[in-house]
Amino acid sequence: MSDFTATDHLMMARALRLAERGAYTTRPNPMVGCVIARGDEVVGEGFHQRAGEAHAEVVALQAAGEQARGATVYVTLEPCAHTGRTGPCADALVEAGVARVVTAMRDPFPQVDGAGFDRLVAAGIDVVDGLMETEARELNRGYVSRVVRGRPWVRVKLATSIDGRSALANGESKWISGEASRNDVQHWRARAGAIVTGAGTVLADDPSLTVRLDEAQPFEPPLRVVLDPGLATVHRGRVREGDAPTLYVHAPHTKLGRGISAQLAVVDVERGRFDLNRVLKLLAERGINEVQVEAGATLAAAFLDAGLVDELLLYVAPVLLGSEARPLFDGLNIEHMDERLQMDIVDSRQLGGDIRLLLRPRG
Amino acid sequence: MSDFTATDHLMMARALRLAERGAYTTRPNPMVGCVIARGDEVVGEGFHQRAGEAHAEVVALQAAGEQARGATVYVTLEPCAHTGRTGPCADALVEAGVARVVTAMRDPFPQVDGAGFDRLVAAGIDVVDGLMETEARELNRGYVSRVVRGRPWVRVKLATSIDGRSALANGESKWISGEASRNDVQHWRARAGAIVTGAGTVLADDPSLTVRLDEAQPFEPPLRVVLDPGLATVHRGRVREGDAPTLYVHAPHTKLGRGISAQLAVVDVERGRFDLNRVLKLLAERGINEVQVEAGATLAAAFLDAGLVDELLLYVAPVLLGSEARPLFDGLNIEHMDERLQMDIVDSRQLGGDIRLLLRPRG
Repeated sequence: MSDFTATDHLMMARALRLAERGAYTTRPNPMVGCVIARGDEVVGEGFHQRAGEAHAEVVALQAAGEQARGATVYVTLEPCAHTGRTGPCADALVEAGVARVVTAMRDPFPQVDGAGFDRLVAAGIDVVDGLMETEARELNRGYVSRVVRGRPWVRVKLATSIDGRSALANGESKWISGEASRNDVQHWRARAGAIVTGAGTVLADDPSLTVRLDEAQPFEPPLRVVLDPGLATVHRGRVREGDAPTLYVHAPHTKLGRGISAQLAVVDVERGRFDLNRVLKLLAERGINEVQVEAGATLAAAFLDAGLVDELLLYVAPVLLGSEARPLFDGLNIEHMDERLQMDIVDSRQLGGDIRLLLRPRG
Repeated sequence: MSDFTATDHLMMARALRLAERGAYTTRPNPMVGCVIARGDEVVGEGFHQRAGEAHAEVVALQAAGEQARGATVYVTLEPCAHTGRTGPCADALVEAGVARVVTAMRDPFPQVDGAGFDRLVAAGIDVVDGLMETEARELNRGYVSRVVRGRPWVRVKLATSIDGRSALANGESKWISGEASRNDVQHWRARAGAIVTGAGTVLADDPSLTVRLDEAQPFEPPLRVVLDPGLATVHRGRVREGDAPTLYVHAPHTKLGRGISAQLAVVDVERGRFDLNRVLKLLAERGINEVQVEAGATLAAAFLDAGLVDELLLYVAPVLLGSEARPLFDGLNIEHMDERLQMDIVDSRQLGGDIRLLLRPRG
C-alpha cells in the first residue's frame, strides 16, 4: 500500500468529479478525469467528453502547457498505450516531461491492461496506482463490466408502492411515484447506454424511453431496446419516435412483415423467454456499458431469476395498492427462507414524497 | 400570535425533552415537562414520571424553591385545575408567586380544558399558550387521541421485504428484519399502552410481546391484547408469560373452558371480524393512549380497511421474497387508482441494513 498524501487525495477526488462530467457522453469509452498539479497548485485539468475526441490527459496537458514538465499527473484510469481514434496518452505524458503519474485503477481493456504503466515506467516516470480505486471502479462499473465480464452492468429500475406493488390489477400504474422521482430517472437513463423494455410494456404503457433533461445538459441518446419475440410492436409506439435509436430483439424464424425499417436482432427463445445472457452479450458487442431495464414485473423477475441484476433502482411511493395489485416481481418464486434474495442498501434518500433506494445483491 | 423570544423557544424545547423522559412510565397520564427560569437561567425543572406521583410543575417548583417567585414557568401542557391523585398544579403555581406561565398546548381533558389557564389569569399571572404546540401535540398524540376522539392512537408495526411481503407462503417470517430493527421496536412498544395481536399470530409465531430494554431503563409493561373470537389460544403461549398483563378479547357467547384465569373482554363480531371500533373504545376506557398493532397481514389490513390506522411503522429489509409470498396487507382490495391509500413519510432512517419508515395517512 503506497502512502498517499492529503494533496494526492484532494487531486484525485477532483479528477473523479471531472471524469463524472462525461457520464452522459463518453460512451462506449470509460469516463476519465485528469488533474495536473505542481505541489498544491493545479496547472491543468480536463476530462474525456466524447469517444473520438481528446482524452482527459491530452486536454489537461494542453491546459498545463510548459508547466506540465516535472509536474504530478492525477488520472482516474491508466493512460492508454495504443493508438485508437487518438494517439496513446502514455506517450503524450512522456513527451510532456511529467515527473509522477498517480492513477486510481488499471484499465482492463486488453490493449492497455498494464501497457500504459509500462511505457511510463520505461521513460523513468514515477508511477503509483490504486488511489481511490473503489470510487473509480464504481464510476466506471459499466465499462469494467463490459470489458471484464463481456456483458453490460444491469440496473433494473422500478417504481413501487410501500406494499410492493407496481400496478393495480387492471394494469393502472400512473401516479405511483411523484414528479421528483420521475425527473430523477432521467439522469439514470442518460448514463445508460441502453434502456431495455418488453413488448408488454410497450403495448400497455406506450413509453417513449427517451431522456428528458435541461437543454443545457448534453447527452448521447441511449439505445432503446424492445424485447419482442414476435415483433408484435414493431409498427407502432412512442418508443420508435424521437431522436434516439431503437433496436427490436426478436425470436428466430419470426416472420418479418413488409416495410419494417427498424434495427433488428435475433436472440434464441426458450420456453417463451429470451435467453437474457445472449441479449446482454449482443448489447456488449455493440459497446453498451450500462443497461437500464424499465419493464414490467415479469421481465424484471426474469432478469433477477437469471442472476443478471447488478443493481435495483427502486422508487418507493408512500401509497398502498392492496393485495390484489400486481406484484413487483412476477414469477419470482421463493419457497424457503434460505433462498431469499438478500441485497444491500447502497444508497437511500427522500425525493419529494418518495424514497429512492439503490440496492445491490449481497455478495 | 404571540411573539416568543429565542429564550422562550429554548426553554420550551428543554421542557419537551424533559416531558419525553416519561414516555415509558406516565401512562395513562400525559407526558409533561416543566422548566422554571429567571431570564436565561434555569432555576428548577422536572417532568411527570408516573401517574399518582408529583406532576412536572410540582417537581420543578420544589427544585426552584424561593427562586420561583417572579419567575417564568415553561410547561408543555396546561397546568391542571382539579384535584386528582395530586392537588391542582395551577394553585401551586399561584402560591409560589410565579410571574409568567408559558404553555405549549391546552389540556383537552374535560376537568381542565382552560380551567387551569383561568385560575392563573385570575391570580394575575401573565399566561401565554401555543409555544411549540405542534411538537407538544406530537409528543402526546396518544393522550390527545384518547381524550378527544375516545380511542387510542393506533400504530401498526410491520416488517416487510422490499417487494412488500411479510412472510413466505409457508408462513416463515423469521430474519426478515435485522437486529437493529428488532431492538428499535422495543422502544415503540414501551411507549404504547397496549400491544394488540391476533389469535393467528399467537398460534403461528408464539410471540411474547413483552418489552426488552436495558435494565437501567424503567418502563410500565404494556397490556398485551389478543383478539381471539373463540378463545382458541387462551391456554397457551408466551403471550401469557412474563410480568406484563394479558387481555383476551373474545366474541359474545363464547364457551369458556374450565380454569381460565385470564383477563377477558367481549366485543361484537360481524362476519367473522371483530368490530375494531369497539375494541379501541374498550381500550380507551382502560386508559390506553397508544396502541401498537403487531399482527399478521389480515388484522393489519382490517385496521386499515376500517380507517383506524394513525401511523404505520414499517421496517423494510433489503431482501426479496417473491410473488408467491404473503402480502403485507391481506384483504386490502383497491380496484381504482383514486381509491389508493396515500400516505406521507413522516420519518425515514437506516437501521443496520434495514430502512425504517414512519408513515401517516395523507390528511
